[in-house]
Amino acid sequence: MRDMLGREDSISVGEAQRRMAEHFSFKEPVSVLVPIGDSYGRVLTHEIYSSEDLPAFPRSTVDGFAVVAASTFGATENLPSYLNVTHEIFMGAKPEFSLRKGTAAKIPTGGMIPEGSDAVVMLEHVQSAHEGLIEVLKPAAPGENIIAAGEDVRRGDLILKRGHRLRPQDVAALAGIGITEVTVYEKPRVSIISTGDEIVPAGSSLLPGQVRDINSYNLAGLILENGGIPLRKGIFRDVYADIRNAVEESLEESLMVLITGGSSVGIMDMTAKIIGSLGSPGVIFHGVTLKPGKPTIGGVVNGISVFGLPGHPAAVTVCFELFIKPVLKMLTGIREKEFLKQRTVKARMARNVSSSAGREEHVRVALEDRDGELWAEPVLGKSGLIRTLVMADGTVAIPAHVRGLEEGQTVEVVLFS
Amino acid sequence: MRDMLGREDSISVGEAQRRMAEHFSFKEPVSVLVPIGDSYGRVLTHEIYSSEDLPAFPRSTVDGFAVVAASTFGATENLPSYLNVTHEIFMGAKPEFSLRKGTAAKIPTGGMIPEGSDAVVMLEHVQSAHEGLIEVLKPAAPGENIIAAGEDVRRGDLILKRGHRLRPQDVAALAGIGITEVTVYEKPRVSIISTGDEIVPAGSSLLPGQVRDINSYNLAGLILENGGIPLRKGIFRDVYADIRNAVEESLEESLMVLITGGSSVGIMDMTAKIIGSLGSPGVIFHGVTLKPGKPTIGGVVNGISVFGLPGHPAAVTVCFELFIKPVLKMLTGIREKEFLKQRTVKARMARNVSSSAGREEHVRVALEDRDGELWAEPVLGKSGLIRTLVMADGTVAIPAHVRGLEEGQTVEVVLFS
Repeated sequence: MRDMLGREDSISVGEAQRRMAEHFSFKEPVSVLVPIGDSYGRVLTHEIYSSEDLPAFPRSTVDGFAVVAASTFGATENLPSYLNVTHEIFMGAKPEFSLRKGTAAKIPTGGMIPEGSDAVVMLEHVQSAHEGLIEVLKPAAPGENIIAAGEDVRRGDLILKRGHRLRPQDVAALAGIGITEVTVYEKPRVSIISTGDEIVPAGSSLLPGQVRDINSYNLAGLILENGGIPLRKGIFRDVYADIRNAVEESLEESLMVLITGGSSVGIMDMTAKIIGSLGSPGVIFHGVTLKPGKPTIGGVVNGISVFGLPGHPAAVTVCFELFIKPVLKMLTGIREKEFLKQRTVKARMARNVSSSAGREEHVRVALEDRDGELWAEPVLGKSGLIRTLVMADGTVAIPAHVRGLEEGQTVEVVLFS
Repeated sequence: MRDMLGREDSISVGEAQRRMAEHFSFKEPVSVLVPIGDSYGRVLTHEIYSSEDLPAFPRSTVDGFAVVAASTFGATENLPSYLNVTHEIFMGAKPEFSLRKGTAAKIPTGGMIPEGSDAVVMLEHVQSAHEGLIEVLKPAAPGENIIAAGEDVRRGDLILKRGHRLRPQDVAALAGIGITEVTVYEKPRVSIISTGDEIVPAGSSLLPGQVRDINSYNLAGLILENGGIPLRKGIFRDVYADIRNAVEESLEESLMVLITGGSSVGIMDMTAKIIGSLGSPGVIFHGVTLKPGKPTIGGVVNGISVFGLPGHPAAVTVCFELFIKPVLKMLTGIREKEFLKQRTVKARMARNVSSSAGREEHVRVALEDRDGELWAEPVLGKSGLIRTLVMADGTVAIPAHVRGLEEGQTVEVVLFS
């Protein structure tokens, strides 16, 4: 259906996301080999299996005495087991002896268990009888206070999955099994094209009617935070050929293209026409029942996603979260647990917020701690204001079928990172 | 009080944190000037005030017609107001005319409101009568569909506070008010000293009794994630003079020193002795009622914090969260809302977990989504195993006075990032 201005009806957020997922064709990103010290936060291109046991030998988990467990059976404080201390084990060295029943070897935490030994008695459960003789006050079970060879990681074990984003402990595990380089995906490059006859660079002083380029800085930061590399392509006047050239060039050098700036009908229509002219299927939605963010355009050009974003700063942030971030995450190669993607906190609304039925509304909120309870104060102001985003800690979504939120109601706040 | 081995009693986590906060002397970090495009995630050294109004001129928030509001009062669909369209306003240009009652000027979203005009009528509320004449179908209130000059940011307004970590929208706001460079704190450098006769570099093949350096990779990643710069100082044998030299050098070139590796009593005592020998007050706690992490040492040497960490990987992660991260955050200069520091999710325990009274226990858990409800499955295994950290999504703390957790109980999981 088209309205009185000839525009197609807006579609729901869910429908827009569905169309994007349907038309976007995922290409396996390029991979690159990096030293593990530079791999934090990068995404693995393939499964990592261990080619060795970790630890490679049985180790003591305590300071104490390596023993044959059977020599300690029945030991009590009144009737201790007496053991001859025949050896001392040192860190990093292989014990060159075999332990026999009735003997013990002093061992530090992490020391290698000698042959013949199957348990370690903690220092705390031992008394020195005289030189070279100890009293064990408590029996040790076989395996007690020992990490067995391969107990941490067994040779052939799957350690990390393809598509996993490397956290500090994952990199540590790689070091542990002797892997010093890993193949990770190249970070996807995302072009940002700022448009608008009124837009000037941040460094310019302003003539009347001009405003500085705000949105490309917001988008660049959001792209960085989500594992991409932003390419700020510059500011273009609202001239069809100029913007089309910029988009065409961006399609060559990046995996996603964002066109920001125009909120007026004429400009958004021009953006849609440019997207449609460059490949198929072109525009897949134009207009979403969403506030802020109604005039958003989503398109796919020969497998590459292209978005036309309204010029209002708050709309840019909401559209990024709803439409751009899911695609960007796919482009980074990440396959992570769904519920780890968003970090939210529960809070109570500090005042009533009304919302029109039929559109999904994203309200910016500042969080406040009142006696240990979190309250979400709506940040009022038009979505064209950057200040509303600066004052906010996150957003609360009001679904399309809900008419508003009541003061005191508990809501889920999606935090800005 | 000292135990039978002559060691001081362990203290609680809270007491250890309190002592650290008391003895640690915060020095204002060094500042550095960076272009705003490189300032994402950096911490501001001073308040940012705006030297101008944003926007600098009144702007339309819609596509429509700039009018004198009074000319539209009483307009309805049946009795519209007729206005002569005398001008068209273009983006980025100053309207060189003054609007009079009974006239209108076509204006795009973001266009500059002309002198004399105090409202914009949306395109949707207008019909074209004939060439140069429009029918306004709904009255416009003064100020309607206009962002006033200075409505976003007023000249002299405080925009961002000292100690604020710059998010994408904050950098965008700086661009908006014409600030292209900001002074941020230098990232604090943190030295990591790996010790242990058994420790070899990640790239080495192993002799019996040897293990690779795992902990320095885990710590380096945690430091990076929390805004610091890790200096991996290398691996040192358990020789007093060697480790002391490494710590002394690290005190010169970094704002925090972490000594990792030794878990045996002898090595931890040597670490404590080294810390004590280098300045005052030296060791401020040695041993915490915490599992994993009991043998942790905290010290301050002439204002610089020094930690001696047990060698077990899981203990390193827990100690980082509890003792190192709070100090590191201070060193970065961040002053953020307390409740934004940790990101947690609620989940239900998937099985019973027992815990000894008298010590705070941190259990590693893997999260699982069961029909939309999160369940936390404890990751079993000794804290000396790196695998337990790789399999986990976060940790659940069991306070010292609680004996354990029951299956089905709702808990707060502190997520790994």
